[in-house]
Parts: sequence; C-alpha cells; structure tokens
Amino acid sequence: MPMINSYRTLKSEKLNTPVQTAWDSYLTGMQMTHPNDPRDNITDSSAAATAMATGTKTYNDAIAVDNNHQQLKSVTEAAKEKKKSVGFVVTSDLTDATPAAFGVHNVSRKNYTEIADQYYDERINGSHKVDVLLGGGAKYFIRNDRNLAEEFQKDGYHYVTTKQDLKKNQHDKLLGLFGEVELDKSIDRENSTPSLKDMTEAALTQLQKNENGFFMLLEGSNIDNAAHENDVVGALSEMEDFEKGVQAALDFAKKDKETLVIITADHSTGGFSYGAEGMTRETGYKWDPSPIIAAKKTPGYMAEKIAEGQDAEKVLSTYIDMKLTENEINQVKNATSQSNTAAVQKSIQLIFDKRSFSGWTTLAHTGEDVPVYAYGPGKEKWKGLIDNTQQAKNIFAILEQK
Amino acid sequence: MPMINSYRTLKSEKLNTPVQTAWDSYLTGMQMTHPNDPRDNITDSSAAATAMATGTKTYNDAIAVDNNHQQLKSVTEAAKEKKKSVGFVVTSDLTDATPAAFGVHNVSRKNYTEIADQYYDERINGSHKVDVLLGGGAKYFIRNDRNLAEEFQKDGYHYVTTKQDLKKNQHDKLLGLFGEVELDKSIDRENSTPSLKDMTEAALTQLQKNENGFFMLLEGSNIDNAAHENDVVGALSEMEDFEKGVQAALDFAKKDKETLVIITADHSTGGFSYGAEGMTRETGYKWDPSPIIAAKKTPGYMAEKIAEGQDAEKVLSTYIDMKLTENEINQVKNATSQSNTAAVQKSIQLIFDKRSFSGWTTLAHTGEDVPVYAYGPGKEKWKGLIDNTQQAKNIFAILEQK
Repeated sequence: MPMINSYRTLKSEKLNTPVQTAWDSYLTGMQMTHPNDPRDNITDSSAAATAMATGTKTYNDAIAVDNNHQQLKSVTEAAKEKKKSVGFVVTSDLTDATPAAFGVHNVSRKNYTEIADQYYDERINGSHKVDVLLGGGAKYFIRNDRNLAEEFQKDGYHYVTTKQDLKKNQHDKLLGLFGEVELDKSIDRENSTPSLKDMTEAALTQLQKNENGFFMLLEGSNIDNAAHENDVVGALSEMEDFEKGVQAALDFAKKDKETLVIITADHSTGGFSYGAEGMTRETGYKWDPSPIIAAKKTPGYMAEKIAEGQDAEKVLSTYIDMKLTENEINQVKNATSQSNTAAVQKSIQLIFDKRSFSGWTTLAHTGEDVPVYAYGPGKEKWKGLIDNTQQAKNIFAILEQK
Repeated sequence: MPMINSYRTLKSEKLNTPVQTAWDSYLTGMQMTHPNDPRDNITDSSAAATAMATGTKTYNDAIAVDNNHQQLKSVTEAAKEKKKSVGFVVTSDLTDATPAAFGVHNVSRKNYTEIADQYYDERINGSHKVDVLLGGGAKYFIRNDRNLAEEFQKDGYHYVTTKQDLKKNQHDKLLGLFGEVELDKSIDRENSTPSLKDMTEAALTQLQKNENGFFMLLEGSNIDNAAHENDVVGALSEMEDFEKGVQAALDFAKKDKETLVIITADHSTGGFSYGAEGMTRETGYKWDPSPIIAAKKTPGYMAEKIAEGQDAEKVLSTYIDMKLTENEINQVKNATSQSNTAAVQKSIQLIFDKRSFSGWTTLAHTGEDVPVYAYGPGKEKWKGLIDNTQQAKNIFAILEQK
C-alpha cells in the first residue's frame, strides 16, 4: 500500500535516517479483500470486517450476517466461549463497521443505534461480549431513548471520557467514549483525547489479567476516514498514531511471548499514490514528505477555523510551517469567498498533494490486495496470498487448539 | 499492485469463474524499490534493474554501475562464470533499461547504441554473456555504422525476425529482433510477431541443453510502457501476454524440478487504481472488466488509424465491440478535429477508464513496494519484505552453492 511507503519516508525524514515501520519486518503475505456482493467487487468496511471476523464473505453493508441475513459466528464470540477477555480499541465510533462486525450482528452497518444497543444486549452465556470498549460514538451510546453508558456501568463497567481518566483506570470492564462520532484525527486532537497507544496500553493492562487469555481488535480507523477525504496530512498523522498503537501491542507480545499479533488493512481507500502528476524524469521522481511535516493541523481543521471567521492567510501561516506561494494562498482565498468549507479544505489539501506528489483517484475504496503481517506463536498460518476470510479461519483454528 | 487485481478480475470474467493468476499462489513477500539517488526516491527501471541484477542500489539512469560509475558484477556474469547459459526474453527493445542492466554496463540507459554494442563487445572469459537474446531493438542493433546482427551471426548465432522463424530455430545461440524498438502491444501484434510465451518456449528449449544449467530473464516490458500512457487496455493485454510467458516458465520448472522461478515487478507505473472517481456506495463499488474485454485493439492503435485518415466513428465501431454513447463518440471526434494523435488516444482511453472505473495519477512511476513470488528450490530465501538488492544477493548465493 503506497500509504505505508509514504509513512516510511515521512518517518525517515523526521528521524533523518532511513527506517522501517513497526510492522515491516513481519510481512508474511497479502490478502484479497473483495466482497461477495451481487453488485460490487470492491469491499466496504463491513463486508471486509465480516470476512475477517467470521470467515464468510458477504455483501457490502453486512455486519456479521451472510447474504441470507443469517447471523455468523465471530472470533469474538468464539474467544468469549473460551472464557477469554475481549477488547476493542478504535479511533472511529465503536458503532462503525469494523468493530461492529467483530462485536454484533446487523443487516446494515447504517443501523448505528441498533448496533450500539446490540453491544449491550447481545450476550455469550449471559455475559457481555466485549470487556474493554474504547473509541468514539458517544452520540449512539448516550441517547434520549437509551443511555448505554449507564447500563454498562450498572453491569460493573467503569466509564471514562478523557485520556486522563483512561490512564487512571483500574477496572477490567471498561467503556471509554472519546468522541461524539469518531475521534479527532491524531494531529488535531485535544489533550483530553487519548491516542491509539494510550487506549491500547489501557486495554492490554486489563485484558492480560484474564488467565484464559484475550482477543483484542485495534483499528487505526481514521486512516480510512482521512483517505476518504483525500487528506494526506490527516492520513499520515493517523498512520503515526496507528504505528504507535501497533508498537505497544508488539512490545506487549514480545515481553509476553504467548501473544499473536496480526496486522493488516481491510481495504485500500482513495487510490492514493506515492508519486503523482507533475513528476517527470527531468524534474525528479520523488514523493516529498517535507510539506506534510510542515503541517501542524489537518486541512479540514484549518478550513473549520476559516469557516469560523478567521482570516484565511493567517490560518495558513499559523498552521503550516512553510512559505506558501501567492498562487497557493489565492487558491484558498478564492475557495473561502465561496463560503464552502469542503472547497476550502480541498484547496488546502491541493497544496500538500502538489508539493508532496501525492495522487488520489477516488473518494471511495479501491480493490487491490493488501499486505498482511504476523508476529508470535501461530504466525505460520498467515503465509502467502490469502483470502480475508482466512483471518477468521486461522483464529478459529487457534482458539480450538487452546 | 492493483493491475494484478484488474487482470485477475478480467481473466475471471473471460472464463466466467473466479480464477487467480499464474503467480498468485507463490507469493512470498514484497520488495522495496527506491533507488540510491541524490535527487529521486522513486526508482526508474535502470536503478531497479541494477539493484536486482547486481545487489547494489544506484542512481536513476545507471546501467549496472554504482554512484561512482564503477561497474558492478551482475548475476548474468556470475552465471556465465559458472558456465551456465543465459537468455533474455523481453517485449521492450533489448537495449532498454531492464535487460541492459542485466547484460552490460553503462553510465546512462539512454546510450542505446553503446548498450547494443556492449551486448556484443563485453565478454566473460572471451564468451558473449547472453546466449539467447529475444526482444525488440532492431534499430539499435542494425545501424549504418555497425550491424550487430551480422557480427553475432559470424560468431555462430542464428538470427530471426519472425515468430515463424523463431519456432523453427534449433540453434543454442540465438538473436531474435521482432521490432525496431519495443514489440507491439500484445493485442495489437501482427501474426509474425511472437508472444512472450513463444519467446520463452524458444529460449527454454535452447537454454536447457546446457548441463551446467541456465539463467533466464523474462520481462513483460510493455506493461510498463502501456501504464506510462495510462492505457488500461494495452496494460491488461500485456498482463495476459506476461502471464502466459510466466506460465511457460512455471510449466518448465514444474517438470524440471531443479529450476527456481522468481516473479516480481521492478516498480509500479501510472498510479493505477482498481476503482476510481465516480464510484459511490450508491452507484456501486466495482471495477468493471467488460469494456476492456470489448476492445480489440489499444486506443493507441485506434488513434493511429484515425491519424491515417480513417473515419473516427468507423474506427471506434470496428475495434470496440460495445455500443458507445453519443458523448463518447463526440469526445473522440473533437480530439480528432485537433489533429493531435496523442489527444485522440487519450480521448479513447477515457472511455475505458470511465466505464471500468480505472484511475491514474501520473504518467510516471510510483514508489510503493511490489509483490514477490517464488517457486522451486531455494525459494525460502525470498520471504517477507526485502530490498530489491536482495534479489541479486540471493541469486549470487545460490550460484555460489552450485
């Protein structure tokens, strides 16, 4: 995935020495991501997550149900049957497709309030399926008609909403909601919002208490969200957040020696390319990280500030540590004059795309195979080109052996 | 690489059943392709081929020389020292960067006539380095100042220029030139032009006669050329030609049981994406092969016919087996009225891009890691994420063992 190359180059530039990502050395193969959908051959996040969580290909929009709307058993449920603890750590809302397909069952990913309810209502042998739930989605969990945070608390869950409270947590049942919907992108986050690493470490501290072991889902969900906006600054800030979360999981596994860590993507988004239009053999074949390093906030954040009435040129100079050309400033000013926040964001994104030679072909997903990385006992099962359903099949097989 | 997914989908559609490519089941990992260039971090074909042929990273444009212009020993030379036979089978001119870096040494890939001369002039223990040379490049080998085809014939090489003569060949020293520069793209080829499979089989028939074994380079060179034009029809017709060549090599290796086959890409080109602008969750998430299957020739071929004076609408209906919209036909007619063959080609390409949801971000290369596949004895060395220099290092190590 080109985003990995861009992140590797960005990280190397920041450290001033060539480095790899936390996962690079564990590459074992790639996975195919296509759904089983009468209309589509490019997956959405729900069909991909259902495949990885249950071992069955299904239609886009399906949350752990098959093409006949029958519920499919997930690795989460199999782990819970084995009396293991389960944790979900995501930067999207917990009701979003990936955690939803690992946690509950629904005919449509769009039934957000139903999905939130199901986290509480669906049980395995009378118990809640997920012991540690960390992410966004407060608006779906805390509603006028139902307050799931309260219900979870009555069942013994500790409830937190800030990084500071998360770090103080000592309860093995934990619900943390750090955003109304998804969390802010890493580079835009306030001090009270935890990083993926903060959440991962908090989750692992609790999950490891179970002598039967645990299953944890960690998702750098906002990489996809940023790529849907074609925002290279946001996507790479989220890649960094993701890497630090993954590193925390790998550090745990290296110490623990009994933990298997699988790292992959559910699909690719945006048709991002490392290198883009305007590059020639004469002017240079280079993807350049330096303009992205100069950004202190995402273009979306800057566009919001401009929408709030701040001066466009002032916002750009405040949040971009790089001298812009008159053309670049004017292109943002022109967009600003149309009072269209999305157009302003796009005009700022174009500065970074053009200077870095980042290309995009769509606001949607794309269908190429994605890399798969595995570390720890059992990793041998993750070799070569696999179907995304093999993820669940391997995990089911490992759970059976225990 | 998204082009592999597109080819897999196209092949599945043609066969009306889901299939994989000839190489999919042999995936062992991926390789990094960046050059060691003071200016560039995206490779060109010469730096990539030098890395894979010699084990040393170098600058873009370098043909088996390092950053100080020192000649680097290639796996071809190491194989020849071990008295093995060597064959090159490519669809570009033999003087193009990839075969050149495996065959000769030059400070610049652009010195085509020097490179052609070097194929004849550079020797290992008095012998020519490459026993079987099949590809394009007649204009560089046969010139007013020097006729290398004649020189090679004087040294015992059989010389052929047609598929028919290639198939009749019985000589273990063979030079075949099937195009002035590169070969026509597979879908555009005349009956006298061999396929990659024809060349591969002809080469293997001769190379296997050497009891010391052989090294063969097979390149589907025109996949890159088509991607430089952002021509999805041409690229996929070349993918099919490449797959059949690879299949011939794999079939040989499976029968022979002593042959190692490595399949990879030197880099990616065009920022191609499987899925593109215009797709939405509402209209469908699908890369569609059917318009590409409807093409009987490349857009470049059609544009040439129009440039020769044929009626645009007639050309489109002759070579595209699909009803076009009035808008599509008019867009080609408008381009035609400007008497710009490149613009006409582009206007025809857009029909296929839009209908298939194929995206492109550049006419140049891109820098993402590319997959690596290995079959046969020694394949264990090709695991995980490797640097492209590891290709040569592995081959040198295997040659040392023999």
